Amino acid sequence: MNPDNIRIVLVNTSHPGNIGGVARAMKNMGLERLVLVAPKDYPSEQANWRAVSAIDVLESAVVVPTLDEAIQDCQFVVGTSARERRIPWPLLDARSCAERIASASSSEQVAVLFGREDRGLTNDELKVCNLHLNIPTAEAYSSLNLAMAVQIVAYELKMLSSATDSPTDEQEQWDTPFASMENMERFYVHLEEALTDIEFLDPAAPRQLMYRLRRLYSRVRLDEMELNILRGILTETQKWVQRGQDPESGGPYT
Amino acid sequence: MNPDNIRIVLVNTSHPGNIGGVARAMKNMGLERLVLVAPKDYPSEQANWRAVSAIDVLESAVVVPTLDEAIQDCQFVVGTSARERRIPWPLLDARSCAERIASASSSEQVAVLFGREDRGLTNDELKVCNLHLNIPTAEAYSSLNLAMAVQIVAYELKMLSSATDSPTDEQEQWDTPFASMENMERFYVHLEEALTDIEFLDPAAPRQLMYRLRRLYSRVRLDEMELNILRGILTETQKWVQRGQDPESGGPYT
Repeated sequence: MNPDNIRIVLVNTSHPGNIGGVARAMKNMGLERLVLVAPKDYPSEQANWRAVSAIDVLESAVVVPTLDEAIQDCQFVVGTSARERRIPWPLLDARSCAERIASASSSEQVAVLFGREDRGLTNDELKVCNLHLNIPTAEAYSSLNLAMAVQIVAYELKMLSSATDSPTDEQEQWDTPFASMENMERFYVHLEEALTDIEFLDPAAPRQLMYRLRRLYSRVRLDEMELNILRGILTETQKWVQRGQDPESGGPYT
Repeated sequence: MNPDNIRIVLVNTSHPGNIGGVARAMKNMGLERLVLVAPKDYPSEQANWRAVSAIDVLESAVVVPTLDEAIQDCQFVVGTSARERRIPWPLLDARSCAERIASASSSEQVAVLFGREDRGLTNDELKVCNLHLNIPTAEAYSSLNLAMAVQIVAYELKMLSSATDSPTDEQEQWDTPFASMENMERFYVHLEEALTDIEFLDPAAPRQLMYRLRRLYSRVRLDEMELNILRGILTETQKWVQRGQDPESGGPYT
C-alpha cells in the first residue's frame, strides 16, 4: 500500500465544515491527498476550524471544476454508494474495498469518490467507477455524515497499513511476558499435587475442582511474575505438609 | 450481540456539536443508548443540529453527574485510550475490542467510555475499565475527533452484527453471572481496608499496589461466586486482625 497514490475526491460538497472534517479524518489515518470538485463554499473559516491540525491537508488540497479533471490520471476509481442501483455494479463493503484500494495503490493512482451530502454521487458519476463501495448502516437511519464516511474508509485503509504494528497483541503492551503453555501445565501439575497434599483435593473424588481452577487461571492469562508468586506459595505450603507428616524432621512449631 | 445492552458514555464533553455528532454516528450503526457524564454545554441547539435525524437518541440520552452513576449496573466496561500507560492495562484495537463488546452484550450491560476532547479519560477513570480500546492512527496526527472515534467503534460493532455468524458469548457459556461494577468497587474498598489492616499496604506509601491488584482482577472478570469467596476471605482476615489488636476478646488460639 502506498498512501501517496490514494486521493480522496469530494464532489460538490455543500458544507465547508465537512471539508475540514474530512481533512482531519484523512490525516488521522495517514492520508494526505484531497481533491475538491466544485465545492459550494470554499475556502472557508469553518473548514479550517474543523480541520484543526490537518490544516496542511486543506492547504495542499486541489480544487477542480469537474470530476473528469479530478480523476483523469487514475487507474482505479472507487465510488461510494448508499443506494441500490437499478443496474447492479460491482459493489463491496468498505473493508473488502479497502483491500482492493490498498493493493492497487502500490503501483497505480487510486481515487475514492464521495458525493453530495444530500444525494451522493449521480448515476453518471458512479458509472465511471471501477468499483462501488458501500458502508453498512442501520436500516433505521442510513444517511452517514460525509466526513464520517471518509473516516470509516480511511480507517479501514489504516487498519491494513498497520496490520503488523497494531496492538491486537496484548503482550506488546504488557510489562512482563505472559507464561508459556508449558509453564502453565507445570503449574497445574504442581497445584494439583499441593491441593492433594493438603487434602483439599481428594484424588478419588476430584469433582470439578481442577477444571474450575484451570478455567480461572487460563482466563486471567498469568504473566511470569504472577506465576512465580503462585508457585512459590505452593512450594512453601508443601514444606509445611512434609514437616507435619514426618515428625522426625520437626513440625512447624518446633 | 444485543445493541440494547450497549451504552456509549461521554465523559465531560466540551463541545455540544460533538454530542450531536455522536448521536448520529450511533444511530447510523444501530446503537441508541447514550449517557452523558457532566457535559459542559448541554442541552444545546448545536447538538440537535448535528444529530440531524438522530434527535431521538439525544432526547432519550441520560445525563448524570458522575461516571460511577453511568456505569454502576454494568458488568463490562471499556475505556478508550490513546496514551501509553506507565503500568500497562489490557489494550485491544477497536476491531478486537468490538468482538469482546458484542459478545458481552448478549447477556450483560456494557459501557464504552469516551473522554474529554482535549485530554481523554483520566487515569482514575481508566482504572475502572476491564479493557482499554485503542483506535490505530497515523503518528503525524493521532488526535481523533470525539464523534469520529465513536463512529469507528460503532461501525466495528455494526460490521459484527451484519456478519452472519455471531461470535460466541462469554456470559452465555458461563455458569455464574459476572460481578457488576458496583460490587467490584465495593470489593476494592474492602480489599484496600483489609490490606491496610494487616499492614501489607501502607496508606502513606501505597506505591502501585492497588493499581496492580485492580489490573489483575479487572483482567480476570470475577464472577459473583468468586467475588463472594474473596470478600469472605477478607472478612475472616479482618476478624483475626481485630482479635490481635484487642487481647480481651481472645486471640485466635483461645
